[in-house]
Formats: sequence, C-alpha cells, structure tokens
Amino acid sequence: MTASPTVPAPSRDFAFLAALAEAAGAEALAHFRVGVAADNKAGPGAYDPVTAADRGAEAAIRRLIEEAFPADGIIGEEFGAVRGGAEHTWIIDPIDGTRAFLAGLPLWGTLIGLVTGDRAALGLMAQPYIGEVFLGDGRSAELRRGGTITPLRSRQDRALGEALVMSTSPHLFQGEEAAAFARVVAASRDVRYGADCYAYCMLAAGQVDLVVETGLKTYDIAALVPIIEGAGGVVTTWDGAPAKDGGRIVAAGSRALHDEAMALLRG
Amino acid sequence: MTASPTVPAPSRDFAFLAALAEAAGAEALAHFRVGVAADNKAGPGAYDPVTAADRGAEAAIRRLIEEAFPADGIIGEEFGAVRGGAEHTWIIDPIDGTRAFLAGLPLWGTLIGLVTGDRAALGLMAQPYIGEVFLGDGRSAELRRGGTITPLRSRQDRALGEALVMSTSPHLFQGEEAAAFARVVAASRDVRYGADCYAYCMLAAGQVDLVVETGLKTYDIAALVPIIEGAGGVVTTWDGAPAKDGGRIVAAGSRALHDEAMALLRG
Repeated sequence: MTASPTVPAPSRDFAFLAALAEAAGAEALAHFRVGVAADNKAGPGAYDPVTAADRGAEAAIRRLIEEAFPADGIIGEEFGAVRGGAEHTWIIDPIDGTRAFLAGLPLWGTLIGLVTGDRAALGLMAQPYIGEVFLGDGRSAELRRGGTITPLRSRQDRALGEALVMSTSPHLFQGEEAAAFARVVAASRDVRYGADCYAYCMLAAGQVDLVVETGLKTYDIAALVPIIEGAGGVVTTWDGAPAKDGGRIVAAGSRALHDEAMALLRG
Repeated sequence: MTASPTVPAPSRDFAFLAALAEAAGAEALAHFRVGVAADNKAGPGAYDPVTAADRGAEAAIRRLIEEAFPADGIIGEEFGAVRGGAEHTWIIDPIDGTRAFLAGLPLWGTLIGLVTGDRAALGLMAQPYIGEVFLGDGRSAELRRGGTITPLRSRQDRALGEALVMSTSPHLFQGEEAAAFARVVAASRDVRYGADCYAYCMLAAGQVDLVVETGLKTYDIAALVPIIEGAGGVVTTWDGAPAKDGGRIVAAGSRALHDEAMALLRG
C-alpha cells in the first residue's frame, strides 16, 4: 500500500520526531504532579505515577513508529528491543530523569533518537510541561517553543578553569570514578547537580560547558548525541569511544575543553 | 491625594504580588539564556547577565511598591533596606538561584514577601520562563499558571524513611552541619540537589517532603514561609525559631516529619 497523494509519506526528520514527542507528552503530563489526593488514594504500590507515565509515553511513541516505519528497529527503556539489525533503529527513553519527575521538577524529558547504520543521526529531547523541544541532526540543532525556533550553539571559548560542570548527582560516582570526577570539578569554576538530560541540552544552548556522568544506557544518551554535535559540542565515552551506546560519558562545548576534561578523567 | 473612584486603591494581596512579579519577570527574562553571541561580545566583566537581571527586576518591584505603599519598608538583596521599623516590610530577592539562572535552568525564582508586624504574612515565588506563580498567605497557598489556579497542599503522610529530601547543594554544609545533614539524608528515602526556592514550592505542592539548608538570608526565605505554611507545611530554623529571618532552615510537609528531622539535626 502506498501513501495517498494527499497525505505525504512520513520521513525520518524533525517534524516526525516532534509529532512523536507531542503524543508522548500528553501521556506523561497526565501523571506529572498528580498531587496528594491521587497519591493518598492508592495503597502501597497501587499507583506509581512515573511507571504509568513511562509506559504510556513509550507505548504512544512505538505505535506511531510502527505505523510509519514498520521495518525499523526500536529499543525502548520500558518495552525492550524489536528488529535488531535493522538499518534504522529508534532509541527511546520515555521519561529520562524519573527522580526529577517524582519531585515535581520540570527537568525530566522524553528522549527519542534515531541510529542509522552506526551513526546517531537524529535526536530529540522534549520537556512538555515547559513546552520545549530540543532537536538535532549532528549538523545543526534547535530549540522549538511556542512557535519560536532558536538555533543552539555550544560555548566554544571556555577553558576548564572557567567552565560550569553538571552531573546528575555526586552520589553517581564510586571509587576511581569518583576520584576522576573530583579532579575535573576541582579544576573547574563551578559544579551543579540534578538535571539529567536537561544538562546536555543546556550545554547545546551555550549555558553549561561540561557534563560528566557514568552508568548511562544507550537510551539515556543516543538521542542527545545529534543535539550536542549539531550545536558544535563533543560527546564521547571517557575512553574516547562513540557515546551513543552509553557507559561513562563526557560532553563538552568545544573540542579543546573535551581534551582538557579527558586528560583529567584518565588521571 | 486619595485614589480616584474609578481606580481601586491597591491592597496588599495576591493580585498586587502577581503584578509585582509580572513587572520583575519581564526584566529578568530579558537576560535569561542570552546566548553565546551576547556572552562573546562582552569583555571580561563587561556584561554579567545575572547582575543585570537582578538589578532590573528589583528596581521594577521597588518602583511599584513605592508608588502603592510609600510608607512601607523594603529590604532587597540588590538595593538594601529603607524605612526600617515600618509596620509593613516587603522583602525581595529578585533572582533566587542565580547559579541555576546562569546554567539556563528554569528553577530560579523571584521572591517577594510581606512581613506585617512580626509575621511573614504574604509571599510569592514566580518563575517567569515557565509562567508559574506560587502564592501563599499562611492560611492557603496556590499555584497560578496560564489562567489556572491550583490549590497547594503539602504531603501529610510521609515518615522520614519514606521522605524525599532536597537541598541546594551537598557542598553547602561544613563540619557539624554536614554531619547533621548527613544524618537526615541517611534516614530518608532519597535526596536531590539543585532547586533553590523551587524546592520549597515543590514541598508546598506535595511533591517533596523535606528541605534542609543553611546560611539563608531573610530575602531567601521570608517570601516562602506563607506559601509553605499556607499549604500545610512547617518551616523553622534548626533551633525551632521562626524561619523568616533566615539562617539554618528546615521545612517539612507535616508537623510529625518536621519533629523527626529536628531530632536528627540536633544530633
């Protein structure tokens, strides 16, 4: 069956990503800040808002991908992997930053990435409560909000001594990894915690210079790579391998700052 | 001169607070996420977005208060104190959470409190990028956003073992204070960092159970007291004194949780 002439065939682009995020956002917001009443009504374990939001949002995204691109692979945090080995694979974290979600803080996001062949080709982070959609394709990146499109460009001029560093939590790191992270923080201007995927988008927006984390899964980072790179930033593992598969991640606004951070992480 | 019959005299209420916040928000947003271009154009020290936002927002608030209530006292972070000893004193932090502001994170807020006699009578926290205004008068509290008003009610049923704790940064505490904070965190379910005034509003909204901080000034907390208390929460210093003058602060969703936290903070 081919598409009717009046309905354009879907393509793997920013517009399709934004449509996925819109469907997911409605599901997630239905469970965000549900309040004391809903919380009290449920017995222990009866209603977990973040699990409900996670499942509802991922199901909405998968439904639209299956309709538009039934041969593509999908990897999602909640419902696992299908069609491994496909040329195009969609990588989904419906609610990245579940602890922010539970605390009512609008710094969680829906992450949707597209890996084509071996390349993180396209990525989206959407924060539906604020109404922000961050998009990137590795060559450019933009923020869409309320009909306005703002190009994203990472800061290129900050040495580590002037850099603002972010990480999800100081408790993320143990042993040698904690020592490596401490070396980077000690050499930087300032560190802030608690922003999950939002921190990488602020790096792309030229507000934050360095994000250092460990223990990431592919669905925590694959969608962010084309946004960071599209804004002029650099993101790899601490060993310099491609970031899209997860692990220990270091993202920097510029190549020079990435080099500085890598030297300290290696010790 | 009395007010003309067609223009109602201003009163010290939620509507007046919201009008102050609107004027301040326009000033603050003009300097939020100003981006790489503006940042690069300025030489070192030439343009500091957070200082510009702080001064513009506080000046806008003071102008409106001086017009409406010329006999009232004002204490502001940027421009100091006038008319000490007045019956009504407005306490202003134009940008609480300057580090969040600099990182591009929309968790900073404009704080405006009214102390009448010895009581923190009225308070507002506004986050203009998200479009949220939190208001309280000690008996009730509400969130206004986009024409919708949501009553705020803190969680009443969480013991410390189930509590979500927030604080601005783990690096806030030194020595005995660090040990006291560590005791509370160890007894809680989870801790998150990095939300400044936003954390107290999430406590009022029933999302966060406990906020523990130190070194606060009166303009960091006076506006939040009527919001927390209006939502059913309890906020004092670690010694149990009124919170509105600042110092070491502990806010809890319920009286019972406040008692539990106080016992551990005292050691």
